[in-house]
Amino acid sequence: MVRTVVESKTKTVVIGFDEPFCVIGERINPTGRKKLAAELELDDFSTVERDAIEQVACGAMVLDVNSGAVFTNKMAEDPRYADNNFVEPTLMPEMVRRIQAIVDVPLCIDSSVPGALENGLEAAEGRPLLNSVTGEEERLELVLPLVKKYNVPVVAISNDDTGISEDPEVRFAVAKKIVERAADFGIPAHDIVVDPLVMPVGAMASAGQQVFTLVRRLRDELGVNTTCGASNVSFGLPNRHGINAAFLPMAIGAGMTSAIMNPIRAVEMEAVAAANFLMNHDPNGGNWIRLARVLEAVKEGASFAEASKAAQEAGAAGGRGGRRRRRG
Amino acid sequence: MVRTVVESKTKTVVIGFDEPFCVIGERINPTGRKKLAAELELDDFSTVERDAIEQVACGAMVLDVNSGAVFTNKMAEDPRYADNNFVEPTLMPEMVRRIQAIVDVPLCIDSSVPGALENGLEAAEGRPLLNSVTGEEERLELVLPLVKKYNVPVVAISNDDTGISEDPEVRFAVAKKIVERAADFGIPAHDIVVDPLVMPVGAMASAGQQVFTLVRRLRDELGVNTTCGASNVSFGLPNRHGINAAFLPMAIGAGMTSAIMNPIRAVEMEAVAAANFLMNHDPNGGNWIRLARVLEAVKEGASFAEASKAAQEAGAAGGRGGRRRRRG
Repeated sequence: MVRTVVESKTKTVVIGFDEPFCVIGERINPTGRKKLAAELELDDFSTVERDAIEQVACGAMVLDVNSGAVFTNKMAEDPRYADNNFVEPTLMPEMVRRIQAIVDVPLCIDSSVPGALENGLEAAEGRPLLNSVTGEEERLELVLPLVKKYNVPVVAISNDDTGISEDPEVRFAVAKKIVERAADFGIPAHDIVVDPLVMPVGAMASAGQQVFTLVRRLRDELGVNTTCGASNVSFGLPNRHGINAAFLPMAIGAGMTSAIMNPIRAVEMEAVAAANFLMNHDPNGGNWIRLARVLEAVKEGASFAEASKAAQEAGAAGGRGGRRRRRG
Repeated sequence: MVRTVVESKTKTVVIGFDEPFCVIGERINPTGRKKLAAELELDDFSTVERDAIEQVACGAMVLDVNSGAVFTNKMAEDPRYADNNFVEPTLMPEMVRRIQAIVDVPLCIDSSVPGALENGLEAAEGRPLLNSVTGEEERLELVLPLVKKYNVPVVAISNDDTGISEDPEVRFAVAKKIVERAADFGIPAHDIVVDPLVMPVGAMASAGQQVFTLVRRLRDELGVNTTCGASNVSFGLPNRHGINAAFLPMAIGAGMTSAIMNPIRAVEMEAVAAANFLMNHDPNGGNWIRLARVLEAVKEGASFAEASKAAQEAGAAGGRGGRRRRRG
């Protein structure tokens, strides 16, 4: 059985064919979130911290930490800030430390800057996931040594120096090349989590089927776990959540074992929980029944994050109370 | 390519691996609907007619017509009415005629009474689906001759004289036996639509995976289309629609080609439409975009049936209006 082990200081999450689908929370990412980038520029980590707590409450098992902020004000004063190779290696470890201080789930260190990846790996407790390597020669030579040195698993995105191919055969070949190159570095296949790249189905009618086929092949032929940016499939379409909520169960049925996604969205998390149950990865439906109670509160007007936090706190208080009563 | 052709007087629906998922509307069924049974006893077909119109508006491509009514008042007066072999052979053709008079979709003639099946087949225009044969010896010998005589496709339920096995291997073997026995009658595999039987996942943790595996095998090894009573999977669980809405896309991804289900439920129909799109069975997402508009109306307070009927009428009026304008 293929098992990709990621760890925080005290928690272990296994990504695997016989495990519940691993939800990697995507929200801690200043790319395209101007307000968050502006806060980070002012050393304000309050949104990062809130996003960490909310995502974990909503069921994220791993948190992606992306340090790709653009510091526009500092840039105006000091041109070095125009270079993310200058900004991110300092920002990433600070984000990692702040998040680790308040939640105890494994992290996914996400940057295009090698110095940020390395400093993130230094700062992270346990065994984080590294995000990402591609089939581009330069990335392979920069990132795989870090993966080996820190003995961590890595997300492998199936594009290479020629870009992103629309041909799934080419994307499979790129994934295979990365797995083989990693093996040259002594990195086992079970530490590679392949992102086969999800195209928008509105632009490419075969996008869904491509992913389902690729996921099965990656699993059967390369023996690797898989991940994806799930919401990309519905880009540009009306009622996007409805597409995402069907895509996730279909991908899980095909063998997809994780996704980088927004756990604050009830519809998608409901789809993942139902799929886990139907894959026999939710013993006695315990998680499904807990989620059904949260969704009842959502129907009555609470946000999914609020309802999830309330349920988490009630569960924790109930647990402690129960133990206390038993002792007393 | 395996294609099961069903027809009304003027419409053809193909159940097949390369076709949109065939939604067979389940509502016209007095079993467990006491009010409907009481109406039918009084020769009142208004609910049947309303259910026919609503289900078609909501997207049902075929309508199941089940004549399993119990006529409690007539039974008190005339003991012959205690026997469904007396009631259904008259009721079924009447239901078929009433439905055909107001909607033009193929029908699925559904009864446990051979006389009702035959009279339904006589009354039906086009090429209805027959529901059902099982692996029970008596049923095989009663139903397969009708299938051959009327040259119609048939639903084959994978239980036999020993009952419903919890072992999917046994259910596969029963399906195989039915396909082989049908071949002895000269009935081709593409006219058998196998129901592999869906167990409740709340009672049997492997129920989902059993179905997905069986559907793939039925398709790959027997070359048959498949159907199921989809909502059974969520029996006894909270938030059942959420389970159904994940089950349907997963089953479709595994190769399931039809289901007998309630098309009045927006959540399930949304899941089917999204899955069709992701399977590349909705060119340019036309159906998805139409459904997204209906769901907008549902958000604003309309029922799914009302909103679907309004959209259907607007579409029809718009179409006529457009042609009129062009002519004028």
